[in-house]
Amino acid sequence: MRRWNGWGDDTIQAHLPPGASEFLSSQVGVPVPGKDADLAAVCAQIEREQPSRLTGAWAHPLVETGAEARLRGSYGQSLGDWIALRHGRIGRVCDGVAFPEGRSQVRALLDWAAAHQVRVIPCGGATSVVGHLSPRADDPSPVLSLNLTRMRALTDLNEAAQLATFEAGVLGPDLEAQLRARGYTLGHFPQSFEYASLGGWVVTRSSGQQSLRYGRAEQWFAGGTLLTPGGQLDLPPLPASAAGPDLREWVLGSEGRFGVLTDVTVRVSRLPEDERFLGLFLPNWEAGLAAVRELAQRKTPLSMMRLANAVETLTTLKLAGHAGQIAWLERYLAWRGCGEGKVLLFLGLTGPHDQVVAAQREALRVVKAHGGVSTGQMLGKKWAAKRFAGVYLRNALWDAGYMVDTMETAIPWGGTTAMVNALEDAGRAALAGFGERCHAYTHLSHVYSSGSSVYSTFVFRRAATVEEAHARWWALKTGVSRAIVAQGGTISHQHGVGKDHAPYLGAEKGAAGLAGMDALIQHFDPQGVLASGNLR
Amino acid sequence: MRRWNGWGDDTIQAHLPPGASEFLSSQVGVPVPGKDADLAAVCAQIEREQPSRLTGAWAHPLVETGAEARLRGSYGQSLGDWIALRHGRIGRVCDGVAFPEGRSQVRALLDWAAAHQVRVIPCGGATSVVGHLSPRADDPSPVLSLNLTRMRALTDLNEAAQLATFEAGVLGPDLEAQLRARGYTLGHFPQSFEYASLGGWVVTRSSGQQSLRYGRAEQWFAGGTLLTPGGQLDLPPLPASAAGPDLREWVLGSEGRFGVLTDVTVRVSRLPEDERFLGLFLPNWEAGLAAVRELAQRKTPLSMMRLANAVETLTTLKLAGHAGQIAWLERYLAWRGCGEGKVLLFLGLTGPHDQVVAAQREALRVVKAHGGVSTGQMLGKKWAAKRFAGVYLRNALWDAGYMVDTMETAIPWGGTTAMVNALEDAGRAALAGFGERCHAYTHLSHVYSSGSSVYSTFVFRRAATVEEAHARWWALKTGVSRAIVAQGGTISHQHGVGKDHAPYLGAEKGAAGLAGMDALIQHFDPQGVLASGNLR
Repeated sequence: MRRWNGWGDDTIQAHLPPGASEFLSSQVGVPVPGKDADLAAVCAQIEREQPSRLTGAWAHPLVETGAEARLRGSYGQSLGDWIALRHGRIGRVCDGVAFPEGRSQVRALLDWAAAHQVRVIPCGGATSVVGHLSPRADDPSPVLSLNLTRMRALTDLNEAAQLATFEAGVLGPDLEAQLRARGYTLGHFPQSFEYASLGGWVVTRSSGQQSLRYGRAEQWFAGGTLLTPGGQLDLPPLPASAAGPDLREWVLGSEGRFGVLTDVTVRVSRLPEDERFLGLFLPNWEAGLAAVRELAQRKTPLSMMRLANAVETLTTLKLAGHAGQIAWLERYLAWRGCGEGKVLLFLGLTGPHDQVVAAQREALRVVKAHGGVSTGQMLGKKWAAKRFAGVYLRNALWDAGYMVDTMETAIPWGGTTAMVNALEDAGRAALAGFGERCHAYTHLSHVYSSGSSVYSTFVFRRAATVEEAHARWWALKTGVSRAIVAQGGTISHQHGVGKDHAPYLGAEKGAAGLAGMDALIQHFDPQGVLASGNLR
Repeated sequence: MRRWNGWGDDTIQAHLPPGASEFLSSQVGVPVPGKDADLAAVCAQIEREQPSRLTGAWAHPLVETGAEARLRGSYGQSLGDWIALRHGRIGRVCDGVAFPEGRSQVRALLDWAAAHQVRVIPCGGATSVVGHLSPRADDPSPVLSLNLTRMRALTDLNEAAQLATFEAGVLGPDLEAQLRARGYTLGHFPQSFEYASLGGWVVTRSSGQQSLRYGRAEQWFAGGTLLTPGGQLDLPPLPASAAGPDLREWVLGSEGRFGVLTDVTVRVSRLPEDERFLGLFLPNWEAGLAAVRELAQRKTPLSMMRLANAVETLTTLKLAGHAGQIAWLERYLAWRGCGEGKVLLFLGLTGPHDQVVAAQREALRVVKAHGGVSTGQMLGKKWAAKRFAGVYLRNALWDAGYMVDTMETAIPWGGTTAMVNALEDAGRAALAGFGERCHAYTHLSHVYSSGSSVYSTFVFRRAATVEEAHARWWALKTGVSRAIVAQGGTISHQHGVGKDHAPYLGAEKGAAGLAGMDALIQHFDPQGVLASGNLR
């Protein structure tokens, strides 16, 4: 069963690799693990302190009001969510959860909510890390979590046009299985793939690890249906159009504020003939940066570029286990010019065999010109095999006494290194305020011709009290968000805005942009049925 | 000097190639050329019948009110525009033209217009073929044409990020010259390249011939500044973002209804190391269609795919001149299996040499598997050399007694052939209503994994009277537009909406979509300063 207070299935238990604890202790200090809150106790507390208001005259046959469903419907996977759940210090939860089984039930629930002044928060796989799912603390209205995950059917596959239409609540593995049976793939693999939903990817403008070939949500989202409180927006899956504003952009990034996405048509591909992930090392950060920028600007047809900085590279090697093999690898790399300060680059190659071979030849030539050394597919295969298992490590780290958070942005080339330093510095400074050390490291998860994403991870010790834990997380979130804004980056390249990033949205949208967004929200949802506090 | 009543510079005189007239006569009948109206007479008529209202208390130092400037500011390049100008049957023209020389002058003019209830129609290179520039006949307000073409500076070039910022009025050749001097290209080459402006490309979602590599306006438009009647929208050139709705989409396709685009940051590329255009033939339409679809769905890194149907192929060969060489070529092609019904495919390859070589190898293998025959670069070189000269042929055709119009759409694969037939049939039926024949032919100008554009050309005889000429054009426009809508295509893949396509926009946007667009227009422009009738 899915964990209620951590990542993934509770039959899967990740373990820290040998040496990991020693390495992390050396970086941030010896941790003090603590005991997690108990689910039954938490549910009892919810029933006692916040009884559902969707009962009696406010009941609806599709709305469940059990405490566990309400708890699960109100939290995502942010560190703030974890802290609340693990410590059993629950904030406001929704009053009920509905699991509609089709577009007409969604329509009925939206109409019912409007008539009863109930706030609706649409929910997919509940993998948000930016606070999308929790009711606003300052909002007295009853809140319904509209969980779409029972809407999971492949309703149409146009093989000529490679267009597949799904109900929006389908989760990643289910979606891929339904496509694979017909010989297709969407190719969208964010780290949250195993639990994230298609509709969630669209409304948060999600980016997958191989978006370089398959596209971000913006590129593969071809059309669909958005039920707004007052109407229905039907978007035909045109290959391209110059007919005025592209209304798909009212769905992408809308985060449940304009309507509920019920049906999604996506651009799919035939299952690839060939796929490889190469692990390469470059002598230093600057060389790595120059190599990935050149590859992006040449438009070498790769499916993935992922460049770790020196600290992330070191951390990856330390946490890989197999210390003996790693030592041998590092001796070889040092001999080839990649010693201390070296950086690890993963390249993905996906597609027809001849294209993959040509792209690999081109990519290796470019990387080698920057002093890079290929280690072949061994590390890449390992990375690919563990790409969704890695998230489970967060559970093991928590149990061992560590907290982990990640923050990300994107910025044009020229500002990359300053942004990396600003994020890591801000993370360390935030924890230093508590007398704690923070192990910060960074990779570029997505590379474009004009710039890249910047994705930083922060590991630090758990706190003795929930107040202290929460304060550390919030100081980190605030400090790093401010650093992102100060450096001119976007407040999110791939996680979205939710409530946690909403205060920083104005920095990139401007007053005129926010006012326009408000006008559209007011137009689509004048009653505020969807006024969750996400985005705005 | 630029022609006032046709395409391009009046020192450039195109001539019909030998045999062209005979071929076209055989298709649509012997034409009867007529005499064009005289510019001086037309201007005198404007001064007499529609004196400018932007004089006296309504004068502004930046606004010119001469009749010729007003005439030139009120017409684009649609066939309807040509008919009006060539016959001297002028409709309503604007009351004045301003040529602002910077953002602050645009701001001042917008404020002045709002204060004086003057309608503003932004204008770039005046190459619209969908009626963007003419004042609405039913609108009594004075109209100002806001011509941005004196705003043409490259104001910033970030070489690391390959981001160039221009003032929005820069025309294609000027933009490319300024970039080429620094080693860069935007690579945006629509057929109207020589006179179209950067800002116009953005607000009409323009597509260039090599958009497969360089991207449509949606892909290369990174950010900029839109002056709305009440404010200013500043869009930072982020490489990607998941931070809510992408506000660039309020500029793309806005056609001057939300504001005036003054500054544009674009994603540029290094000048390509290698570029080739290959001419290939396939035995028939179905084979051609299958080949381009496969190339798009494999994501073979080409810069252009352009597939003519059999009638366009025949027409291209007939109008190429060089009958002897063409006959020899056709004998060779017939021997290789491409006889009657053969179709011509141009492939563009652009980029680093090694990438071009690999892509060419892959593309040729795919095309040959569908029975295709490559004729190397000879035809492609000819096409590339004449890519912007071809438009001048419209002048020669008019002089010879023919009218030409083009209509275009995009549709998912599966519907392509039905769409081609529907467009050509609708064109022929429209002219048959006048007892006239119509020579109709089609190519796919842009190919995507999920579908393609469909671009049809219609050649028919000029009429003796302006009323009859206008009626023929309008019957064609109406009939073909209805066919597009009936087949489920977009009302425009690359020309935009303007006033001519506005009645058909609802078919793809839906009532909820149009209402949302109206809400945004109302938000940005409550007074209707920009209520030109374009889009809505």
